[in-house]
Amino acid sequence: MRRIRTIIAYDGTDYVGWQTQPNGVAVQQVVEQAILEVTGEHASLQGSGRTDSGVHARAQVAHFDTEARMAADKFAIALNTHLPADIRVLFSEEVDPAFHARFSAKEKQYRYFVQTGPHADVFARRYALHAYMPLDLDRMNEAAALVVGTHDFSAFMSTGREVESAVRTVSLSRWEKQGKFLVYSVQGNGFLYNMVRILVGTMLGMGSDRIPKDSMEQALSTLSRKAAGPTAPPHGLVLWRVKYPDFDTEEVLAQ
Amino acid sequence: MRRIRTIIAYDGTDYVGWQTQPNGVAVQQVVEQAILEVTGEHASLQGSGRTDSGVHARAQVAHFDTEARMAADKFAIALNTHLPADIRVLFSEEVDPAFHARFSAKEKQYRYFVQTGPHADVFARRYALHAYMPLDLDRMNEAAALVVGTHDFSAFMSTGREVESAVRTVSLSRWEKQGKFLVYSVQGNGFLYNMVRILVGTMLGMGSDRIPKDSMEQALSTLSRKAAGPTAPPHGLVLWRVKYPDFDTEEVLAQ
Repeated sequence: MRRIRTIIAYDGTDYVGWQTQPNGVAVQQVVEQAILEVTGEHASLQGSGRTDSGVHARAQVAHFDTEARMAADKFAIALNTHLPADIRVLFSEEVDPAFHARFSAKEKQYRYFVQTGPHADVFARRYALHAYMPLDLDRMNEAAALVVGTHDFSAFMSTGREVESAVRTVSLSRWEKQGKFLVYSVQGNGFLYNMVRILVGTMLGMGSDRIPKDSMEQALSTLSRKAAGPTAPPHGLVLWRVKYPDFDTEEVLAQ
Repeated sequence: MRRIRTIIAYDGTDYVGWQTQPNGVAVQQVVEQAILEVTGEHASLQGSGRTDSGVHARAQVAHFDTEARMAADKFAIALNTHLPADIRVLFSEEVDPAFHARFSAKEKQYRYFVQTGPHADVFARRYALHAYMPLDLDRMNEAAALVVGTHDFSAFMSTGREVESAVRTVSLSRWEKQGKFLVYSVQGNGFLYNMVRILVGTMLGMGSDRIPKDSMEQALSTLSRKAAGPTAPPHGLVLWRVKYPDFDTEEVLAQ
Protein backbone atom coordinates (compact mmCIF):
# COMPACT_ATOMS: atom_id res chain seq x y z
CA MET A 1 0.00 0.00 0.00
CA ARG A 2 1.38 3.39 -0.99
CA ARG A 3 0.02 6.84 -0.16
CA ILE A 4 -0.12 9.22 -3.14
CA ARG A 5 -0.17 13.01 -2.69
CA THR A 6 -1.67 15.11 -5.48
CA ILE A 7 -2.22 18.75 -6.38
CA ILE A 8 -5.59 19.24 -8.09
CA ALA A 9 -6.96 22.33 -9.89
CA TYR A 10 -10.63 22.73 -10.70
CA ASP A 11 -13.13 25.17 -12.12
CA GLY A 12 -15.85 24.83 -9.49
CA THR A 13 -18.61 26.40 -11.59
CA ASP A 14 -20.41 23.17 -12.38
CA TYR A 15 -19.83 21.33 -9.07
CA VAL A 16 -21.57 21.27 -5.68
CA GLY A 17 -18.12 21.75 -4.13
CA TRP A 18 -15.19 19.54 -3.20
CA GLN A 19 -17.00 17.16 -0.90
CA THR A 20 -19.40 14.51 -2.11
CA GLN A 21 -23.02 15.56 -1.51
CA PRO A 22 -26.39 13.94 -2.14
CA ASN A 23 -27.59 16.83 -4.34
CA GLY A 24 -25.16 17.04 -7.24
CA VAL A 25 -21.73 16.20 -8.61
CA ALA A 26 -18.72 16.93 -6.37
CA VAL A 27 -15.08 17.20 -7.41
CA GLN A 28 -14.06 14.53 -4.89
CA GLN A 29 -16.35 11.88 -6.36
CA VAL A 30 -15.30 12.67 -9.94
CA VAL A 31 -11.62 12.19 -9.07
CA GLU A 32 -12.41 9.04 -7.06
CA GLN A 33 -14.18 7.69 -10.16
CA ALA A 34 -11.06 8.45 -12.25
CA ILE A 35 -8.91 6.59 -9.67
CA LEU A 36 -11.29 3.63 -9.98
CA GLU A 37 -10.91 3.67 -13.76
CA VAL A 38 -7.10 3.87 -13.56
CA THR A 39 -6.47 1.43 -10.69
CA GLY A 40 -9.63 -0.65 -10.36
CA GLU A 41 -9.69 0.40 -6.71
CA HIS A 42 -12.38 2.22 -4.71
CA ALA A 43 -10.04 4.75 -3.13
CA SER A 44 -11.01 7.40 -0.60
CA LEU A 45 -9.63 10.78 -1.67
CA GLN A 46 -8.93 13.10 1.27
CA GLY A 47 -8.65 16.82 0.49
CA SER A 48 -6.99 19.57 2.54
CA GLY A 49 -10.48 20.91 3.19
CA ARG A 50 -13.81 21.40 1.50
CA THR A 51 -14.56 24.16 -0.94
CA ASP A 52 -18.17 25.29 -1.35
CA SER A 53 -20.36 24.99 -4.40
CA GLY A 54 -19.01 27.22 -7.16
CA VAL A 55 -15.65 27.86 -5.46
CA HIS A 56 -12.52 27.08 -7.50
CA ALA A 57 -9.12 25.62 -6.70
CA ARG A 58 -5.80 26.47 -8.28
CA ALA A 59 -4.03 24.13 -5.86
CA GLN A 60 -6.09 21.75 -3.75
CA VAL A 61 -4.03 19.02 -2.08
CA ALA A 62 -5.49 15.53 -1.71
CA HIS A 63 -4.15 12.06 -0.92
CA PHE A 64 -5.30 8.50 -1.53
CA ASP A 65 -3.92 5.01 -0.91
CA THR A 66 -3.35 2.49 -3.65
CA GLU A 67 -1.95 -0.96 -4.40
CA ALA A 68 -1.48 -0.06 -8.07
CA ARG A 69 2.09 -0.49 -9.28
CA MET A 70 2.15 2.61 -11.49
CA ALA A 71 5.06 5.05 -10.94
CA ALA A 72 3.77 7.65 -8.48
CA ASP A 73 4.48 10.65 -10.73
CA LYS A 74 2.48 9.05 -13.58
CA PHE A 75 -0.83 9.20 -11.71
CA ALA A 76 -1.33 12.84 -12.73
CA ILE A 77 -1.27 12.09 -16.46
CA ALA A 78 -3.21 8.83 -16.08
CA LEU A 79 -5.99 10.42 -14.01
CA ASN A 80 -6.27 13.38 -16.40
CA THR A 81 -7.15 11.06 -19.26
CA HIS A 82 -10.23 10.05 -17.23
CA LEU A 83 -11.19 13.51 -15.94
CA PRO A 84 -13.34 16.23 -17.48
CA ALA A 85 -11.54 19.37 -18.71
CA ASP A 86 -12.57 21.40 -15.66
CA ILE A 87 -10.55 19.18 -13.28
CA ARG A 88 -6.79 18.59 -13.70
CA VAL A 89 -4.34 16.70 -11.51
CA LEU A 90 -1.22 18.88 -11.75
CA PHE A 91 1.19 16.74 -9.73
CA SER A 92 1.45 13.35 -8.00
CA GLU A 93 4.12 11.73 -5.83
CA GLU A 94 4.47 9.03 -3.19
CA VAL A 95 4.42 10.33 0.37
CA ASP A 96 4.93 8.91 3.85
CA PRO A 97 1.72 7.21 5.09
CA ALA A 98 1.81 9.55 8.10
CA PHE A 99 0.95 12.43 5.78
CA HIS A 100 -2.70 13.54 5.79
CA ALA A 101 -3.87 16.22 3.36
CA ARG A 102 -6.16 17.78 5.95
CA PHE A 103 -4.56 17.13 9.33
CA SER A 104 -0.96 17.80 8.25
CA ALA A 105 -1.80 21.15 6.63
CA LYS A 106 -0.23 24.18 8.33
CA GLU A 107 -1.63 27.07 6.30
CA LYS A 108 -3.97 27.71 3.39
CA GLN A 109 -4.21 30.70 1.12
CA TYR A 110 -7.37 31.82 -0.65
CA ARG A 111 -7.72 34.58 -3.22
CA TYR A 112 -10.87 36.46 -4.14
CA PHE A 113 -11.10 38.21 -7.51
CA VAL A 114 -13.22 41.32 -8.06
CA GLN A 115 -13.50 42.79 -11.56
CA THR A 116 -14.17 46.51 -11.66
CA GLY A 117 -15.62 48.68 -14.44
CA PRO A 118 -19.09 49.38 -15.84
CA HIS A 119 -19.52 46.05 -17.69
CA ALA A 120 -18.70 42.47 -16.70
CA ASP A 121 -15.76 40.89 -18.53
CA VAL A 122 -17.12 37.92 -20.52
CA PHE A 123 -13.82 36.04 -20.15
CA ALA A 124 -13.52 36.54 -16.37
CA ARG A 125 -17.19 36.11 -15.53
CA ARG A 126 -16.80 32.57 -14.17
CA TYR A 127 -13.85 33.46 -11.91
CA ALA A 128 -14.41 37.01 -10.70
CA LEU A 129 -17.19 38.99 -9.05
CA HIS A 130 -18.15 41.99 -11.18
CA ALA A 131 -18.41 45.15 -9.06
CA TYR A 132 -19.77 48.09 -11.04
CA MET A 133 -19.73 50.46 -8.05
CA PRO A 134 -16.59 52.45 -7.13
CA LEU A 135 -14.53 50.79 -4.39
CA ASP A 136 -12.20 52.57 -1.97
CA LEU A 137 -9.16 50.28 -2.03
CA ASP A 138 -7.40 52.15 0.78
CA ARG A 139 -10.35 51.68 3.11
CA MET A 140 -10.57 48.00 2.17
CA ASN A 141 -6.89 47.54 2.91
CA GLU A 142 -7.23 49.24 6.30
CA ALA A 143 -9.94 46.71 7.12
CA ALA A 144 -7.87 43.84 5.68
CA ALA A 145 -4.98 44.73 7.99
CA LEU A 146 -7.23 44.30 11.04
CA VAL A 147 -7.74 40.65 10.10
CA VAL A 148 -4.06 39.75 10.51
CA GLY A 149 -3.27 38.03 13.81
CA THR A 150 -5.09 35.62 16.10
CA HIS A 151 -8.79 36.44 16.49
CA ASP A 152 -12.12 34.88 17.33
CA PHE A 153 -13.78 34.95 13.90
CA SER A 154 -17.29 34.02 15.16
CA ALA A 155 -18.74 37.01 13.28
CA PHE A 156 -17.38 35.58 10.02
CA MET A 157 -19.00 32.19 10.09
CA SER A 158 -22.20 30.90 8.52
CA THR A 159 -24.31 28.67 10.68
CA GLY A 160 -24.76 25.00 9.82
CA ARG A 161 -21.45 23.51 10.88
CA GLU A 162 -20.28 22.75 14.41
CA VAL A 163 -16.85 24.03 15.43
CA GLU A 164 -15.06 23.70 18.76
CA SER A 165 -13.43 27.08 18.49
CA ALA A 166 -13.71 30.03 16.10
CA VAL A 167 -10.20 31.24 16.92
CA ARG A 168 -7.92 31.29 13.87
CA THR A 169 -4.58 32.88 13.05
CA VAL A 170 -4.26 34.87 9.83
CA SER A 171 -0.75 35.65 8.57
CA LEU A 172 -1.61 37.51 5.35
CA SER A 173 -4.61 39.68 4.48
CA ARG A 174 -4.40 42.33 1.78
CA TRP A 175 -5.95 43.71 -1.40
CA GLU A 176 -3.94 44.41 -4.53
CA LYS A 177 -4.89 45.99 -7.83
CA GLN A 178 -3.95 43.76 -10.79
CA GLY A 179 -5.10 45.45 -14.01
CA LYS A 180 -8.90 45.49 -14.01
CA PHE A 181 -9.02 43.19 -10.97
CA LEU A 182 -8.89 43.84 -7.24
CA VAL A 183 -7.46 40.71 -5.66
CA TYR A 184 -7.79 39.82 -1.99
CA SER A 185 -5.22 37.35 -0.63
CA VAL A 186 -5.72 35.80 2.78
CA GLN A 187 -3.58 33.10 4.35
CA GLY A 188 -4.05 31.44 7.71
CA ASN A 189 -3.95 28.24 9.74
CA GLY A 190 -7.62 27.52 9.12
CA PHE A 191 -10.86 29.04 7.90
CA LEU A 192 -14.40 28.76 9.21
CA TYR A 193 -17.42 27.97 7.01
CA ASN A 194 -17.80 30.91 4.57
CA MET A 195 -15.20 32.94 6.51
CA VAL A 196 -13.37 34.28 3.45
CA ARG A 197 -16.59 35.16 1.64
CA ILE A 198 -17.93 37.05 4.68
CA LEU A 199 -14.61 38.87 5.11
CA VAL A 200 -14.78 39.88 1.44
CA GLY A 201 -18.45 40.89 1.69
CA THR A 202 -17.62 43.06 4.70
CA MET A 203 -14.73 44.80 2.98
CA LEU A 204 -16.71 45.33 -0.26
CA GLY A 205 -19.52 46.83 1.82
CA MET A 206 -17.06 49.16 3.54
CA GLY A 207 -15.28 50.01 0.26
CA SER A 208 -18.56 50.97 -1.40
CA ASP A 209 -19.85 52.89 1.63
CA ARG A 210 -22.89 50.66 2.11
CA ILE A 211 -22.00 49.60 5.65
CA PRO A 212 -20.32 51.58 8.47
CA LYS A 213 -16.61 52.39 8.23
CA ASP A 214 -15.91 50.53 11.47
CA SER A 215 -17.69 47.32 10.49
CA MET A 216 -14.57 45.16 10.52
CA GLU A 217 -13.52 46.47 13.94
CA GLN A 218 -17.05 45.99 15.29
CA ALA A 219 -17.39 42.46 13.92
CA LEU A 220 -14.01 41.39 15.35
CA SER A 221 -14.79 42.87 18.78
CA THR A 222 -18.51 42.09 19.20
CA LEU A 223 -18.26 38.63 17.50
CA SER A 224 -21.68 39.39 15.99
CA ARG A 225 -22.47 38.12 12.49
CA LYS A 226 -24.79 41.14 12.11
CA ALA A 227 -21.87 43.55 12.45
CA ALA A 228 -20.17 41.97 9.43
CA GLY A 229 -21.27 42.38 5.81
CA PRO A 230 -23.03 39.97 3.46
CA THR A 231 -21.49 36.73 2.21
CA ALA A 232 -19.80 37.44 -1.13
CA PRO A 233 -20.75 35.10 -4.01
CA PRO A 234 -18.68 31.91 -4.42
CA HIS A 235 -17.48 32.32 -8.01
CA GLY A 236 -14.76 34.91 -7.19
CA LEU A 237 -13.09 32.60 -4.64
CA VAL A 238 -10.10 30.36 -5.37
CA LEU A 239 -8.21 27.99 -3.06
CA TRP A 240 -4.79 29.28 -4.06
CA ARG A 241 -2.13 27.51 -1.99
CA VAL A 242 -1.73 24.87 0.74
CA LYS A 243 1.39 24.67 2.93
CA TYR A 244 2.69 21.68 4.89
CA PRO A 245 5.86 21.41 6.98
CA ASP A 246 7.62 19.61 4.09
CA PHE A 247 5.51 20.63 1.10
CA ASP A 248 4.28 23.89 -0.43
CA THR A 249 2.07 23.86 -3.53
CA GLU A 250 3.52 27.22 -4.56
CA GLU A 251 7.01 25.74 -4.84
CA VAL A 252 5.81 22.75 -6.85
CA LEU A 253 3.75 24.89 -9.27
CA ALA A 254 6.69 27.28 -9.77
CA GLN A 255 8.84 24.44 -11.14
CA MET B 1 -33.44 57.21 -37.93
CA ARG B 2 -30.11 57.11 -36.10
CA ARG B 3 -27.18 54.79 -36.64
CA ILE B 4 -25.71 53.32 -33.42
CA ARG B 5 -22.14 52.02 -33.26
CA THR B 6 -21.32 49.44 -30.59
CA ILE B 7 -18.35 47.49 -29.26
CA ILE B 8 -19.34 43.94 -28.31
CA ALA B 9 -17.35 41.30 -26.39
CA TYR B 10 -18.32 37.64 -26.40
CA ASP B 11 -17.18 34.25 -25.23
CA GLY B 12 -17.75 32.29 -28.44
CA THR B 13 -17.64 28.84 -26.80
CA ASP B 14 -21.37 28.21 -27.00
CA TYR B 15 -22.13 29.93 -30.34
CA VAL B 16 -21.94 28.89 -34.00
CA GLY B 17 -20.06 32.15 -34.61
CA TRP B 18 -20.96 35.78 -35.17
CA GLN B 19 -23.17 35.34 -38.20
CA THR B 20 -26.65 33.88 -38.02
CA GLN B 21 -26.68 30.27 -39.26
CA PRO B 22 -29.38 27.62 -39.71
CA ASN B 23 -27.59 25.15 -37.40
CA GLY B 24 -27.30 26.83 -34.03
CA VAL B 25 -27.33 30.06 -32.05
CA ALA B 26 -25.21 32.95 -33.38
CA VAL B 27 -24.04 36.03 -31.49
CA GLN B 28 -25.59 38.34 -34.11
CA GLN B 29 -29.09 36.92 -33.66
CA VAL B 30 -28.88 37.02 -29.86
CA VAL B 31 -27.95 40.72 -29.91
CA GLU B 32 -30.64 41.45 -32.54
CA GLN B 33 -33.16 39.80 -30.20
CA ALA B 34 -31.97 42.07 -27.36
CA ILE B 35 -32.39 45.11 -29.64
CA LEU B 36 -35.95 43.92 -30.36
CA GLU B 37 -36.67 43.64 -26.64
CA VAL B 38 -35.24 47.11 -25.92
CA THR B 39 -36.62 49.03 -28.92
CA GLY B 40 -39.47 46.92 -30.32
CA GLU B 41 -37.67 47.07 -33.67
CA HIS B 42 -36.38 44.26 -35.91
CA ALA B 43 -32.95 45.78 -36.46
CA SER B 44 -30.23 44.37 -38.69
CA LEU B 45 -26.93 44.27 -36.79
CA GLN B 46 -23.88 44.57 -39.06
CA GLY B 47 -20.54 43.38 -37.65
CA SER B 48 -17.02 44.26 -38.77
CA GLY B 49 -16.74 40.67 -39.99
CA ARG B 50 -17.72 37.16 -39.05
CA THR B 51 -15.98 35.08 -36.46
CA ASP B 52 -16.16 31.30 -36.73
CA SER B 53 -17.84 28.91 -34.35
CA GLY B 54 -16.01 28.92 -31.02
CA VAL B 55 -13.96 32.05 -31.76
CA HIS B 56 -14.17 34.87 -29.21
CA ALA B 57 -14.26 38.65 -29.42
CA ARG B 58 -12.80 41.15 -27.01
CA ALA B 59 -13.85 44.02 -29.29
CA GLN B 60 -16.19 43.28 -32.18
CA VAL B 61 -17.67 46.44 -33.75
CA ALA B 62 -21.25 46.38 -35.03
CA HIS B 63 -23.85 48.97 -36.04
CA PHE B 64 -27.64 49.07 -36.29
CA ASP B 65 -30.27 51.68 -37.13
CA THR B 66 -33.04 52.66 -34.79
CA GLU B 67 -35.94 55.06 -34.31
CA ALA B 68 -35.83 54.57 -30.54
CA ARG B 69 -35.37 57.81 -28.62
CA MET B 70 -33.02 56.43 -25.98
CA ALA B 71 -29.75 58.32 -25.43
CA ALA B 72 -27.17 56.60 -27.66
CA ASP B 73 -24.73 55.83 -24.85
CA LYS B 74 -27.48 54.09 -22.84
CA PHE B 75 -27.95 51.30 -25.38
CA ALA B 76 -24.98 49.39 -23.92
CA ILE B 77 -26.53 49.10 -20.46
CA ALA B 78 -30.06 48.53 -21.80
CA LEU B 79 -28.97 45.74 -24.15
CA ASN B 80 -26.89 44.04 -21.46
CA THR B 81 -29.96 43.59 -19.28
CA HIS B 82 -31.38 41.43 -22.11
CA LEU B 83 -28.19 39.55 -23.02
CA PRO B 84 -26.73 36.34 -21.58
CA ALA B 85 -23.56 36.69 -19.47
CA ASP B 86 -21.30 35.52 -22.31
CA ILE B 87 -22.16 38.55 -24.49
CA ARG B 88 -21.62 42.15 -23.30
CA VAL B 89 -22.09 45.44 -25.15
CA LEU B 90 -19.16 47.51 -23.85
CA PHE B 91 -19.91 50.80 -25.58
CA SER B 92 -22.54 52.54 -27.72
CA GLU B 93 -22.70 55.90 -29.47
CA GLU B 94 -24.47 57.61 -32.35
CA VAL B 95 -22.47 57.66 -35.55
CA ASP B 96 -22.79 59.22 -39.02
CA PRO B 97 -25.09 57.06 -41.22
CA ALA B 98 -22.22 56.80 -43.72
CA PHE B 99 -20.37 54.62 -41.20
CA HIS B 100 -20.49 50.88 -41.88
CA ALA B 101 -18.95 48.45 -39.37
CA ARG B 102 -17.62 46.21 -42.15
CA PHE B 103 -16.94 48.46 -45.13
CA SER B 104 -15.45 51.37 -43.14
CA ALA B 105 -12.98 49.14 -41.23
CA LYS B 106 -9.32 49.78 -42.01
CA GLU B 107 -7.57 47.15 -39.92
CA LYS B 108 -8.38 44.31 -37.58
CA GLN B 109 -6.23 42.64 -34.96
CA TYR B 110 -6.60 39.05 -33.82
CA ARG B 111 -4.77 37.34 -30.98
CA TYR B 112 -4.24 33.62 -30.54
CA PHE B 113 -3.49 32.24 -27.06
CA VAL B 114 -1.41 29.10 -26.52
CA GLN B 115 -0.94 27.75 -23.00
CA THR B 116 2.25 25.79 -22.46
CA GLY B 117 3.14 23.26 -19.78
CA PRO B 118 2.38 19.58 -19.12
CA HIS B 119 -1.25 20.06 -17.97
CA ALA B 120 -4.06 22.24 -19.33
CA ASP B 121 -5.01 25.22 -17.14
CA VAL B 122 -8.63 24.70 -16.03
CA PHE B 123 -9.24 28.45 -15.92
CA ALA B 124 -7.83 29.17 -19.40
CA ARG B 125 -9.17 26.08 -21.14
CA ARG B 126 -12.00 27.90 -22.93
CA TYR B 127 -9.74 30.67 -24.27
CA ALA B 128 -6.37 29.10 -24.98
CA LEU B 129 -5.03 26.10 -26.87
CA HIS B 130 -3.06 23.81 -24.58
CA ALA B 131 0.26 22.79 -26.16
CA TYR B 132 2.07 20.19 -24.09
CA MET B 133 4.98 19.85 -26.58
CA PRO B 134 8.00 22.21 -26.40
CA LEU B 135 7.74 25.14 -28.81
CA ASP B 136 10.68 27.04 -30.31
CA LEU B 137 9.51 30.64 -29.92
CA ASP B 138 12.44 32.06 -31.90
CA ARG B 139 11.62 29.90 -34.89
CA MET B 140 7.93 30.84 -34.63
CA ASN B 141 8.84 34.53 -34.57
CA GLU B 142 11.09 34.16 -37.61
CA ALA B 143 8.09 32.68 -39.44
CA ALA B 144 5.77 35.37 -38.07
CA ALA B 145 8.04 38.10 -39.44
CA LEU B 146 7.64 36.67 -42.97
CA VAL B 147 3.90 37.33 -42.78
CA VAL B 148 4.31 41.12 -42.44
CA GLY B 149 3.74 42.98 -45.71
CA THR B 150 1.49 42.53 -48.74
CA HIS B 151 1.18 38.90 -49.82
CA ASP B 152 -1.11 36.52 -51.67
CA PHE B 153 -2.36 34.40 -48.75
CA SER B 154 -4.01 31.71 -50.90
CA ALA B 155 -2.15 29.01 -48.97
CA PHE B 156 -3.79 30.25 -45.75
CA MET B 157 -7.44 29.96 -46.75
CA SER B 158 -9.97 27.21 -46.19
CA THR B 159 -12.19 26.41 -49.13
CA GLY B 160 -15.90 27.16 -48.99
CA ARG B 161 -16.00 30.92 -49.48
CA GLU B 162 -15.52 32.84 -52.74
CA VAL B 163 -13.03 35.71 -52.70
CA GLU B 164 -11.99 38.02 -55.54
CA SER B 165 -8.43 38.27 -54.33
CA ALA B 166 -6.36 36.58 -51.64
CA VAL B 167 -3.95 39.51 -51.40
CA ARG B 168 -3.90 41.09 -47.95
CA THR B 169 -1.59 43.48 -46.14
CA VAL B 170 -0.40 42.55 -42.64
CA SER B 171 1.13 45.30 -40.49
CA LEU B 172 1.83 43.31 -37.32
CA SER B 173 2.68 39.64 -36.81
CA ARG B 174 4.56 38.46 -33.75
CA TRP B 175 4.63 36.03 -30.85
CA GLU B 176 5.17 37.13 -27.25
CA LYS B 177 5.58 35.16 -24.04
CA GLN B 178 3.11 36.31 -21.36
CA GLY B 179 3.57 34.15 -18.27
CA LYS B 180 2.42 30.63 -19.14
CA PHE B 181 0.97 31.83 -22.46
CA LEU B 182 2.46 32.32 -25.89
CA VAL B 183 0.39 35.01 -27.59
CA TYR B 184 0.33 35.61 -31.34
CA SER B 185 -0.84 39.07 -32.44
CA VAL B 186 -1.63 39.72 -36.08
CA GLN B 187 -3.08 42.91 -37.52
CA GLY B 188 -3.99 43.60 -41.14
CA ASN B 189 -6.42 45.15 -43.58
CA GLY B 190 -8.38 41.94 -43.94
CA PHE B 191 -8.28 38.21 -43.28
CA LEU B 192 -9.35 35.26 -45.41
CA TYR B 193 -11.52 32.41 -44.12
CA ASN B 194 -9.50 30.62 -41.38
CA MET B 195 -6.37 32.61 -42.31
CA VAL B 196 -5.28 33.33 -38.74
CA ARG B 197 -5.89 29.75 -37.62
CA ILE B 198 -3.86 28.34 -40.53
CA LEU B 199 -1.04 30.84 -39.87
CA VAL B 200 -1.02 29.71 -36.23
CA GLY B 201 -1.19 26.01 -37.16
CA THR B 202 1.76 26.50 -39.50
CA MET B 203 3.88 28.28 -36.88
CA LEU B 204 2.99 25.74 -34.16
CA GLY B 205 3.98 22.94 -36.56
CA MET B 206 7.29 24.67 -37.26
CA GLY B 207 7.87 25.48 -33.57
CA SER B 208 7.35 21.84 -32.58
CA ASP B 209 9.41 20.46 -35.48
CA ARG B 210 6.52 18.55 -36.99
CA ILE B 211 6.64 20.31 -40.37
CA PRO B 212 9.65 21.62 -42.35
CA LYS B 213 11.51 24.69 -41.14
CA ASP B 214 10.77 26.54 -44.38
CA SER B 215 7.01 25.87 -44.37
CA MET B 216 6.02 29.53 -44.02
CA GLU B 217 8.33 30.59 -46.84
CA GLN B 218 7.11 27.71 -49.04
CA ALA B 219 3.43 28.44 -48.39
CA LEU B 220 3.83 32.15 -49.15
CA SER B 221 5.77 31.47 -52.36
CA THR B 222 3.97 28.39 -53.76
CA LEU B 223 0.48 29.57 -52.65
CA SER B 224 -0.25 25.90 -51.85
CA ARG B 225 -2.48 25.04 -48.91
CA LYS B 226 -0.51 21.80 -48.57
CA ALA B 227 2.69 23.68 -47.83
CA ALA B 228 1.06 25.33 -44.80
CA GLY B 229 0.27 23.59 -41.51
CA PRO B 230 -3.05 22.41 -40.07
CA THR B 231 -5.85 24.78 -39.03
CA ALA B 232 -5.44 25.55 -35.32
CA PRO B 233 -8.57 25.03 -33.17
CA PRO B 234 -10.94 27.99 -32.81
CA HIS B 235 -11.01 28.38 -29.03
CA GLY B 236 -7.60 30.09 -28.77
CA LEU B 237 -8.60 32.87 -31.20
CA VAL B 238 -9.90 36.29 -30.16
CA LEU B 239 -10.96 39.24 -32.34
CA TRP B 240 -8.93 41.79 -30.37
CA ARG B 241 -9.24 45.20 -32.02
CA VAL B 242 -10.91 46.95 -34.97
CA LYS B 243 -9.63 50.24 -36.39
CA TYR B 244 -11.51 52.82 -38.45
CA PRO B 245 -10.28 56.17 -39.77
CA ASP B 246 -12.05 57.95 -36.88
CA PHE B 247 -12.47 55.15 -34.32
CA ASP B 248 -10.20 52.62 -32.62
CA THR B 249 -11.65 50.10 -30.16
CA GLU B 250 -8.33 50.09 -28.29
CA GLU B 251 -8.67 53.79 -27.46
CA VAL B 252 -12.26 53.40 -26.28
CA LEU B 253 -11.50 50.36 -24.09
CA ALA B 254 -8.51 52.14 -22.54
CA GLN B 255 -10.77 54.89 -21.19
